Amino acid sequence: MTMPLTGELLIAGRAQRGEGAAFHAFDATSGEPIAPPVFHAASVADVDRACELADEAFDAYRALPAEQRARFLDDCAARIEALGDPLIERAMTETGLPRARLEGERARTVNQWRMFAALVRSGDALDARVEPALPHRQPPRTDLRFWRIGVGPVAVFGASNFPLAFSVGGGDTASALAAGCPVVVKAHPAHPGTSELVGRAVQQAVAAASLPAGVFALLFDAGYDAGCALVQHPAIRAVGFTGSRTGGLALLKLAAARPEPIPVYAEMSSVNPNLLLPGALAARGETLAREFTASATLGCGQFCTNPGLMLGLTGATFDAFAAYAAREFSAVPAGVMLTAGILHAYERGVERLSQHPQVTTLARGAAVSGRAQAALWRVRANSFLTDPSLGEEVFGPSSMLVECADEAELRVVLRKLEGQLTVTLHMDPADAELAHSLLPLIERKAGRLLVNGFPTGVEVCDAMVHGGPFPATSDSRSTSVGTAAIERFLRPVCYQNFAEDLLPEALRDGNPLNLRRRFAGRPETKETG
Amino acid sequence: MTMPLTGELLIAGRAQRGEGAAFHAFDATSGEPIAPPVFHAASVADVDRACELADEAFDAYRALPAEQRARFLDDCAARIEALGDPLIERAMTETGLPRARLEGERARTVNQWRMFAALVRSGDALDARVEPALPHRQPPRTDLRFWRIGVGPVAVFGASNFPLAFSVGGGDTASALAAGCPVVVKAHPAHPGTSELVGRAVQQAVAAASLPAGVFALLFDAGYDAGCALVQHPAIRAVGFTGSRTGGLALLKLAAARPEPIPVYAEMSSVNPNLLLPGALAARGETLAREFTASATLGCGQFCTNPGLMLGLTGATFDAFAAYAAREFSAVPAGVMLTAGILHAYERGVERLSQHPQVTTLARGAAVSGRAQAALWRVRANSFLTDPSLGEEVFGPSSMLVECADEAELRVVLRKLEGQLTVTLHMDPADAELAHSLLPLIERKAGRLLVNGFPTGVEVCDAMVHGGPFPATSDSRSTSVGTAAIERFLRPVCYQNFAEDLLPEALRDGNPLNLRRRFAGRPETKETG
Repeated sequence: MTMPLTGELLIAGRAQRGEGAAFHAFDATSGEPIAPPVFHAASVADVDRACELADEAFDAYRALPAEQRARFLDDCAARIEALGDPLIERAMTETGLPRARLEGERARTVNQWRMFAALVRSGDALDARVEPALPHRQPPRTDLRFWRIGVGPVAVFGASNFPLAFSVGGGDTASALAAGCPVVVKAHPAHPGTSELVGRAVQQAVAAASLPAGVFALLFDAGYDAGCALVQHPAIRAVGFTGSRTGGLALLKLAAARPEPIPVYAEMSSVNPNLLLPGALAARGETLAREFTASATLGCGQFCTNPGLMLGLTGATFDAFAAYAAREFSAVPAGVMLTAGILHAYERGVERLSQHPQVTTLARGAAVSGRAQAALWRVRANSFLTDPSLGEEVFGPSSMLVECADEAELRVVLRKLEGQLTVTLHMDPADAELAHSLLPLIERKAGRLLVNGFPTGVEVCDAMVHGGPFPATSDSRSTSVGTAAIERFLRPVCYQNFAEDLLPEALRDGNPLNLRRRFAGRPETKETG
Repeated sequence: MTMPLTGELLIAGRAQRGEGAAFHAFDATSGEPIAPPVFHAASVADVDRACELADEAFDAYRALPAEQRARFLDDCAARIEALGDPLIERAMTETGLPRARLEGERARTVNQWRMFAALVRSGDALDARVEPALPHRQPPRTDLRFWRIGVGPVAVFGASNFPLAFSVGGGDTASALAAGCPVVVKAHPAHPGTSELVGRAVQQAVAAASLPAGVFALLFDAGYDAGCALVQHPAIRAVGFTGSRTGGLALLKLAAARPEPIPVYAEMSSVNPNLLLPGALAARGETLAREFTASATLGCGQFCTNPGLMLGLTGATFDAFAAYAAREFSAVPAGVMLTAGILHAYERGVERLSQHPQVTTLARGAAVSGRAQAALWRVRANSFLTDPSLGEEVFGPSSMLVECADEAELRVVLRKLEGQLTVTLHMDPADAELAHSLLPLIERKAGRLLVNGFPTGVEVCDAMVHGGPFPATSDSRSTSVGTAAIERFLRPVCYQNFAEDLLPEALRDGNPLNLRRRFAGRPETKETG
């Protein structure tokens, strides 16, 4: 089934041409514009309309019984899958990412929807609690019941580097809809056709479930106006964003300056330090160098979890690792980046490092005009410590080895690092004592800690944390992947002394929805419920 | 056991004179300064020292086994109780609040500590999750484990109106310490002696448990410098505040402008609308008027949950309610307010309303110079809607009746209201249909909804929400009362592919701490664990 692209916004259950400026999709590999269709940006009036409809849809949507909400989420998954090969092909063209990667990403994307459907069915995210009246206590206590409801309409900004999993039908959208919040997506202009295809699938699922059309809208803009208007709209109650630090900080600032500030969940930048502990380095330096290179250059290095910083201790094994890694990096083919702008930013970052007096260029990959050339750097920790810019992310296939004089200097480097999505320990049993001693330090620096693996690859599950201290994200209390991502879009509400029939069904006596509730501070059992 | 007050800061396990300006405590009833002691404000250097020690103490404190952390919290409760009558007397003098109220507040305060001790013992707030490896899946999945750890040192600002429950040893401090976060308190200058007494009790509990002294510090300042320095200090990772909207917004702004923004949990202002539905008003208008007046003037109206807005429909029963309430308000004695500044702000608010051309003064209570005179106002909804200032909190024994022409206008008023801590429905069975139809609207406006009660009085329990949409609080996703308050100071961390002995004990195989964990997305049972 092929859906012709029209380049239109998706608002109010219909497709309509944006009132704003026209723009094109680009073929990431050739750099040529793709037309038709021409895409049209949303005007401020378009944004207003989408947000107002989202607000109007909120009460009806959040009142939907769990099973119906779950079926809608499952249907979104099925419809995204049913887009079939045309979705993969369009995404390949627009992003330059290979088929296997995009097929994997699609599987992950639909898994996310299904995971949230299961979560909605379980009712666990409602966190339902009952505190029964204590009429004989002095003073008497009235009945109190608690659950979590959606915060209201959510604005989602699609990411450039995950056209499926972090975009129109990605984790932010799925988790917000699972929480009962309507969603207005601002598509990333790097893959508008992919966005339109997924957006139409979600829009059709909304219609098929007979939901208010305002539950979902898709907006385009190659500039910033629509996104700014979206974050500033009074109906929007939270923002999900994956992208650059500059972009994330701009949205944070806008959200904080609103008459009613709203939370922004921005996932921004991370260099994902890997600590090469001495035992591991001695035992398998060459293997580590090979695996590191594969991880750092996977998808042309365009992962938030890309290992951009490799920390080790001065010595022969570190030198050997550097040599192995240099050999590996030299063999890395030039890669297609997502957009000309991202390639340009990468080249500027590489240029800056190549000119840096304290940074040694260990290796460059193959060079092809218009392609990203992998880059491996080396610097001594004392230089690294004096120039904070060396700890900044260079988005793409670039990574830096940092040589620490001793464990004390390694600790200083770790302590000075900004917040990260991940920190990885490469260790052997002989490194156990050192690893133990570093653990409190790295727990404070990242949301996910790994042993003997590489951070690229983020499982969609109950125990995942894709988040971390600022500036990895704007809000370290959350994750954008896994079931806990739903918490970003929920707020608690307490009902005091409500008659049975006025209470939400989830909170009624006898637990009619059979939820895992808490009763008087403990898990509810048949005896108490 | 009487502890002599010294007016010193409590830093590093010791008392030391602040390097900043001197100030006095005042007798709230007489308005006279109390001396000795003279209190001295913390200098920026004092603030730095307290924050740096808190940061140094963080890792050791959070590593404390649950039972030891719980015992420490219990000991804080016991030591606050053991302060005995001198604490109550000092608080009475400094705040003008009556003995019974302060004894009740003390009971609630120590209950909070004990509730968090029980929560720490249960381990439920850790939210431990295990996702076992799936070695045979393609691609294979490595083992992932998840829990929540403290965000780091927390700054707590004591409130003026709850010298015990929302101050030095109040809910913010107890929940942050329960989360494993060291706390630096900035005492409210309205009750520095009360603050010092409680602060010394907590400091002694820290010493008795042999915890690092940086786990707790108490700072004074009658101005703003110490508080600003505290919120801006890089070691501080979150802020708890209860106070004015001006104060809360100033802290929010400071926190957002930091190089690393941090969350601020500010509970700021609320007029706690009460909806007088027609059936209830017809059945028991006089009783409602009496109960309303008691709630609105309790503690001289100095509650965040004070019913400041009474909404009803035009008609004889509303007029009768107004007449009953006017009679009750006229009999309200003049009250001592917490500080001269708070009295002054109240008088300005009352003056503003008394001069308002559309506002009728229904009644004033007894007038005594230097005391707060209760005030009851009436306004038509169409006037209320055109002047947003009429919906602003007048902190003290002031309340406003808003007469709506019909249900449609009532809905408009509700829709235009700012976020609130509470919304209350006064209803009879005859009002059920109307109540049902209003529920979605009021759920969006407040954190706690009540039926047939008054919002003053906040239970400390598992199902309480003391929070609500902006500007009731700065963060509607949280509560400052009840077990869920601990979530404000926790962040998730995931451990991927960790060997058993490097994992936190809470996440190890076999569930050695016997926690309620999740395993593969479901509650763990003996079979899976």
